[in-house]
Amino acid sequence: VTDAGGVRSTVLGTGSWGTAFAKVLADAGGVVTLCARRPELAAAINERRENADYLPGVRLPAGLTATHDPGEALAGSEIVVIAVPSQTLRTNLTEWAPAIPAGSTVVSLMKGVELGTAKRMSEVIREVAGAAEARVAVVSGPNLAREIAEEQPAATVVACPDADRAAALQRACGTWYLRPYTNSDVVGCELGGAVKNVIALACGMAEGMGFGDNTRASLITRGLAETARLGAALGADPVTFAGLAGLGDLVATCSSPLSRNRTFGERLGRGATVAEAIQLTRQVAEGVKSCRSVLDLARRNGVDVPITEHVAMVCHEGMTAADMVRGLMGRGMKAEAR
Amino acid sequence: VTDAGGVRSTVLGTGSWGTAFAKVLADAGGVVTLCARRPELAAAINERRENADYLPGVRLPAGLTATHDPGEALAGSEIVVIAVPSQTLRTNLTEWAPAIPAGSTVVSLMKGVELGTAKRMSEVIREVAGAAEARVAVVSGPNLAREIAEEQPAATVVACPDADRAAALQRACGTWYLRPYTNSDVVGCELGGAVKNVIALACGMAEGMGFGDNTRASLITRGLAETARLGAALGADPVTFAGLAGLGDLVATCSSPLSRNRTFGERLGRGATVAEAIQLTRQVAEGVKSCRSVLDLARRNGVDVPITEHVAMVCHEGMTAADMVRGLMGRGMKAEAR
Repeated sequence: VTDAGGVRSTVLGTGSWGTAFAKVLADAGGVVTLCARRPELAAAINERRENADYLPGVRLPAGLTATHDPGEALAGSEIVVIAVPSQTLRTNLTEWAPAIPAGSTVVSLMKGVELGTAKRMSEVIREVAGAAEARVAVVSGPNLAREIAEEQPAATVVACPDADRAAALQRACGTWYLRPYTNSDVVGCELGGAVKNVIALACGMAEGMGFGDNTRASLITRGLAETARLGAALGADPVTFAGLAGLGDLVATCSSPLSRNRTFGERLGRGATVAEAIQLTRQVAEGVKSCRSVLDLARRNGVDVPITEHVAMVCHEGMTAADMVRGLMGRGMKAEAR
Repeated sequence: VTDAGGVRSTVLGTGSWGTAFAKVLADAGGVVTLCARRPELAAAINERRENADYLPGVRLPAGLTATHDPGEALAGSEIVVIAVPSQTLRTNLTEWAPAIPAGSTVVSLMKGVELGTAKRMSEVIREVAGAAEARVAVVSGPNLAREIAEEQPAATVVACPDADRAAALQRACGTWYLRPYTNSDVVGCELGGAVKNVIALACGMAEGMGFGDNTRASLITRGLAETARLGAALGADPVTFAGLAGLGDLVATCSSPLSRNRTFGERLGRGATVAEAIQLTRQVAEGVKSCRSVLDLARRNGVDVPITEHVAMVCHEGMTAADMVRGLMGRGMKAEAR
């Protein structure tokens, strides 16, 4: 299937998705360096062929080696993949930028919008690394890291404005278990990933209230409709949202018992306050933060995002999940078209 | 929310979805007659306020009465809803057609393509009842009957080329728990419902093979992409497939443990032959039949439908589910755009 023989890639970030994607690149025939922050983790990965901290039980292939030295990791790399927490990207990349090879394709695996600036991850990369738009790509789709690492079949999108780079990245990450499709719409792919956490919160709330597959499917569909409306206002192609990085990622996230946002929403649906849900799950779900920035973005662009608006009211203004459902169902009747 | 006071409707067919939709029309304020084939069932519904055969445990509202006399049921009806098995529509409707009031809106709740003619349900209705295109509407969405009957919140699409009739039907079936959106694309809404059973079979096979949320979300997304390609060739609006009657219905069906197609596929995924799966589930899932007619339709229109093609090979040419997955993952690399 693939012909990525010998392509040199670096993956910056050793979380579960970064590690799983490094495995994909190596399985596709590439020569991959995984760059860890802690020397101990890099050494452990090289010795045990396993990232026991983030992807326990998954054997990493021979084409993958780890280091803690970003300069060493990046030297000669054709593909530079970044997979760090969204809100730490700017700081991390400021340090790494000088070592990123000039002609390389820089790939974001991150999903989120930078707090304060409301910038997408690819925008932060372009700004901090001084990379031209054509050099920055995004990989996004229904790709729960654990399942990819277990080689369960899935598809994904490789988005880059430069068609040649998109095709090269497609070859570099196509394996028998991961089927990448190219797309030129970076904005749409990134926005799909950012809003899905908000919709997953809403789906979790509905589930916590005891509602089933109709309610979830309705929230997913109308959630995607509002994401597409917002995307269109920001220059994305609405069709992208019906694809793997929109619908695909949303369906996987809203179905998975592994999704933190869905679990957090479930607590709220069962009657917990946000503070109680934080205590119960020991963390703030990503959607709790991003519903505000997504809502800001929508208001500035005059786009109606009723589900996001109601999720924000639950998370930040004390609305109950039951009142959210009543509010969403009681709106004026509409045509389906966006 | 609604203002359907006193609208007279008839529902022909007392299966679970026909009965649940009759309840919706009555809950929205309408005067509803449910027409049963067997006098005993009609009498039981009137006496016990329950359709114990198809929707046990659900209390039917006062605005709903049952009869077994189609002439009595149809007299003075503004909205005529048909909810019988797809392959029996032509025979049943031939008998009912003379009693259908001339100006009424005829609504199809059915999902399927007529064997032999490859006609959609609304086409059969127009042909047999002699109804103008503008009078025929379709209701379709993520609407598992049991959950609607339990008043779990859901959205749906009311499609009719005549905007006034669509809006009237929207008012007639809008309740606090069912939120209808209008759409003019009858072809798209019907096709979404017909192909979803084929995709649900594929999702069931993947599940039976032990694959999780990524694989299912990938199949749903690419299944929707091939449905939209086929729809576009048949004159549907591709955007419809990203909506409630496309994506919404597909996600609900592919997630629900109640879906017969998904369950049937699961057996195949675990290694059963089609004959064994029929024996185990005591029926032939709808998708087993319709994958052939959908594939025929696609070939005649020169549309590539790889998932449907592979499902048909499993169902009718002895391919294994494992070979289906290998076949789908091993195709040439592509761009995502349709």
